[in-house]
Amino acid sequence: MKSDVKSIGIFDSGLGGLTILRQVRRLMPNENLIYFGDTAHVPYGSKSKETVTEYSLNIARFLESKKVKLILVACNTASALALPTLKRHIKVPVLGVINPGARRASAATKNKNIAVLGTEATIKSKEYPKHIKRIDKNITVSQFACPLFVPLIEEGLTQDKITTLVIEKYLAPLKSLNADTVILGCTHYPVIKQNITDALGGKVQLVDSAEEIAKEAKALLERKKMLKTKGKGKIEIYASDSPERFSKLAVNIIGGKRPKVKESRFYI
Amino acid sequence: MKSDVKSIGIFDSGLGGLTILRQVRRLMPNENLIYFGDTAHVPYGSKSKETVTEYSLNIARFLESKKVKLILVACNTASALALPTLKRHIKVPVLGVINPGARRASAATKNKNIAVLGTEATIKSKEYPKHIKRIDKNITVSQFACPLFVPLIEEGLTQDKITTLVIEKYLAPLKSLNADTVILGCTHYPVIKQNITDALGGKVQLVDSAEEIAKEAKALLERKKMLKTKGKGKIEIYASDSPERFSKLAVNIIGGKRPKVKESRFYI
Repeated sequence: MKSDVKSIGIFDSGLGGLTILRQVRRLMPNENLIYFGDTAHVPYGSKSKETVTEYSLNIARFLESKKVKLILVACNTASALALPTLKRHIKVPVLGVINPGARRASAATKNKNIAVLGTEATIKSKEYPKHIKRIDKNITVSQFACPLFVPLIEEGLTQDKITTLVIEKYLAPLKSLNADTVILGCTHYPVIKQNITDALGGKVQLVDSAEEIAKEAKALLERKKMLKTKGKGKIEIYASDSPERFSKLAVNIIGGKRPKVKESRFYI
Repeated sequence: MKSDVKSIGIFDSGLGGLTILRQVRRLMPNENLIYFGDTAHVPYGSKSKETVTEYSLNIARFLESKKVKLILVACNTASALALPTLKRHIKVPVLGVINPGARRASAATKNKNIAVLGTEATIKSKEYPKHIKRIDKNITVSQFACPLFVPLIEEGLTQDKITTLVIEKYLAPLKSLNADTVILGCTHYPVIKQNITDALGGKVQLVDSAEEIAKEAKALLERKKMLKTKGKGKIEIYASDSPERFSKLAVNIIGGKRPKVKESRFYI
């Protein structure tokens, strides 16, 4: 098989990673994309490193079996907990979302004060502070676990008063911290970007990793002369459970009509 | 091993089933109890029948390997989706929570009008209406999926204004239906029983299955002459992921000091 017909594999615990698929599609419209949503195990954000690593490794092996040329870990929790193990066991390049997000936020902050919003597991891993400190040790980093954001987004309550209240609750302590840059450290969060901006009074810059990881992926494929530059790219979507539900909810993120979602059960 | 030293196995997707453990303990203080919380796969409520059945069967087999004399499915979703398969494959008796809840509600309603609150999967299965109609086909049953209750309870936000708003949102359509009995069709929900009573203005009777399934279990063991009536029962708790987190949160439901929780990873 010629390298330029191989696909890019993208995975997440569920729907959130579709915000990255959308960005990859925009930047590399000729590429074939294979997306895997691990709906049999969603959410990852409250689970342990060992468990998230096991799940991630199984998915990466599934994507390898589909002959991908590159894997994007479109999930902050999996990137924070499983990336080193994935890089060790998987032959094709694997990119996570933490480093791109950290890099972009570090470049964006003017007062060297960054806040990170994420799942319980991502915050507990301290991967964002570690990466940011490695770029510039003078940057102050504060972290906020926002465990209800994912269920609210999955329930489609983005325009509901409840979501406004939950955002205000989580972000209240952030307001006095003077951070000028806030990392949306979960691939679900771009869906409520506007709500978060409104809650913070529009005074901070919100950073999500989608655009940055897509750029990094493109640069890597160009460097390896593996970028597909002709023909319309195809999108193939798999879910480990409830593919119909996934298809219905995917529309909230990628728009258009309901995508076809195949079921892949390899988890037991 | 003598039958009277065998344990009662109880399982749930996570913490919710502890409301049943608490009730079983109260009614049968001499029994040894083995509880399994499937925290590697929690929540079950948004997952498919096939997946929930697979998870439930694995846990029931684990409990069988621990020589239990009876298994209580302390999870409405697993009871609604997996009970027939469990009964087919497991040698010891298996009791679910749907039938006890349906029976109790049917006995309690005066105006023959019952409402059911549950997870997406439990509501979709229509198991409560089916069981209630089998008892009395003249009872009207309405159903309400409340997908955010479990995450709110897991986050410990039971006293928060957000929980009040979410309850009001879900129960608004119920108010005009004239139901005099409401089934708490998820083992997490007893934790917010008072909040639900307040939202409904105290005019309805709330039914949870905990007491009823505990009575049913006791009657069954008495009938089979397997009830342990001497010595203080021991409680053994397993979680498939993050046992420390589980132990910390368990205190919210069963009170006392943090229980010891063992990890059991047999899920891959």
